[in-house]
Amino acid sequence: MSTQNIYDDPKFFEGYSRLPRSESGLSAVYEWPAFQRLLPASLRGARVLDLGCGFGYVAREARARGARHVIGVDLSERMLAAARAVTHDDGIEYVHAALEDYAPEAGAFDLVVSSLALHYIADYPALVRKVAACLVDGGRFAFSVEHPIFTAHGSADWYYGAQGDRLHWPVDRYRDEGERRTNWFVDGVVKYHRTIESYVTGLLQAGLCLVRLEEPEAEAAQLAEHPEWRDERRRPPFLLMAAMKAMPA
Amino acid sequence: MSTQNIYDDPKFFEGYSRLPRSESGLSAVYEWPAFQRLLPASLRGARVLDLGCGFGYVAREARARGARHVIGVDLSERMLAAARAVTHDDGIEYVHAALEDYAPEAGAFDLVVSSLALHYIADYPALVRKVAACLVDGGRFAFSVEHPIFTAHGSADWYYGAQGDRLHWPVDRYRDEGERRTNWFVDGVVKYHRTIESYVTGLLQAGLCLVRLEEPEAEAAQLAEHPEWRDERRRPPFLLMAAMKAMPA
Repeated sequence: MSTQNIYDDPKFFEGYSRLPRSESGLSAVYEWPAFQRLLPASLRGARVLDLGCGFGYVAREARARGARHVIGVDLSERMLAAARAVTHDDGIEYVHAALEDYAPEAGAFDLVVSSLALHYIADYPALVRKVAACLVDGGRFAFSVEHPIFTAHGSADWYYGAQGDRLHWPVDRYRDEGERRTNWFVDGVVKYHRTIESYVTGLLQAGLCLVRLEEPEAEAAQLAEHPEWRDERRRPPFLLMAAMKAMPA
Repeated sequence: MSTQNIYDDPKFFEGYSRLPRSESGLSAVYEWPAFQRLLPASLRGARVLDLGCGFGYVAREARARGARHVIGVDLSERMLAAARAVTHDDGIEYVHAALEDYAPEAGAFDLVVSSLALHYIADYPALVRKVAACLVDGGRFAFSVEHPIFTAHGSADWYYGAQGDRLHWPVDRYRDEGERRTNWFVDGVVKYHRTIESYVTGLLQAGLCLVRLEEPEAEAAQLAEHPEWRDERRRPPFLLMAAMKAMPA
């Protein structure tokens, strides 16, 4: 299978780069308050792997919180170039690779994070097995994806009434896992829909133990700045999970 | 809060009693193949608690598989009377109680099951804490509920096109947990919608470890008999989970 690299499409990159989360970083990210709850209490001394690091915001945040070393992996050369341009830190290493091809060292990381990247990956169970193998015992995997409720139907949009009002969110084809082509800055962006069952089962079958699952809504402070995020309560845009290698004591 | 006992409403009971799952038992139950996957490999010698046992099908099945003792708890006197009428087994005890009021002995059960009952319970976290307390270490809790995708909107029905065709399943009010009143044999049946996050978090916060999550579709053999179940693939009707007290070794 060929690996989609939509982020290096000039038109896509231009659009994506103008998103608040691209321009302003984590403070403008809807799910960042929830994502932080997935992380261990302290990152001091941690070796961190960021799968789909994009502009490197999480990598730099991890270093700011005391991580010893961070490797950020991304398929997009444009995003990595932008990340490198604003990173002045020997503790961060950016690696240009498809997540499917990247081969991390076994037992080399205390924390693996991935923000909104795994719904681009066709073989999620294989990726999770790789994550589990590269974690130390007691290490943690924390990730976000587009929610299966969001991706199932394929339109990636509300169902509208005659007056253009948002009637509800349509769900269909829930058990039909696989490609969903949407138009997002450019035509035919390929994402993969899978069920919550598959997201959870992939973790458990890789020997990980689920420690948290969130379907976050925006917090009050965020809504003050982004009132349009209120509708996200009506159906969850993102699914976040944290899992540990071996059981916490 | 008052406990709803819709199953003893004569009109509801009459309608419910004519469902295939009521008349024909587990072989006619859509989610039974998946539910069995939640159970331990062997029930031999197990002490089992069935919360919302209804007509007692699961209780009798557990005994047939070698369970030592089964307690079935239900709020409906009519269902318990029907269960008792077909049960000739000193190893099964039926208890008439609301699940919220029933106080099981601590550490008394190897397995707690609950089939499509917990979406009638307002305080799910409290119920799960009670389940966790009555399990032995290594014991298991296996349950099914109406899926949050199914319950969120509140109509409990497809969204239809002009020709009466099923366009899709509507999702709305996902983060608005609480009562949903539907018409099911009678008007105003109260069920509780909660998020998948809440279903999972309740288990984890009670000290249980998630071992399985399923959003089952019908199997081929079932579809041969019930072709109308094909549409259930389009959105999951049920959510099934199994959790253990303490980590499997």
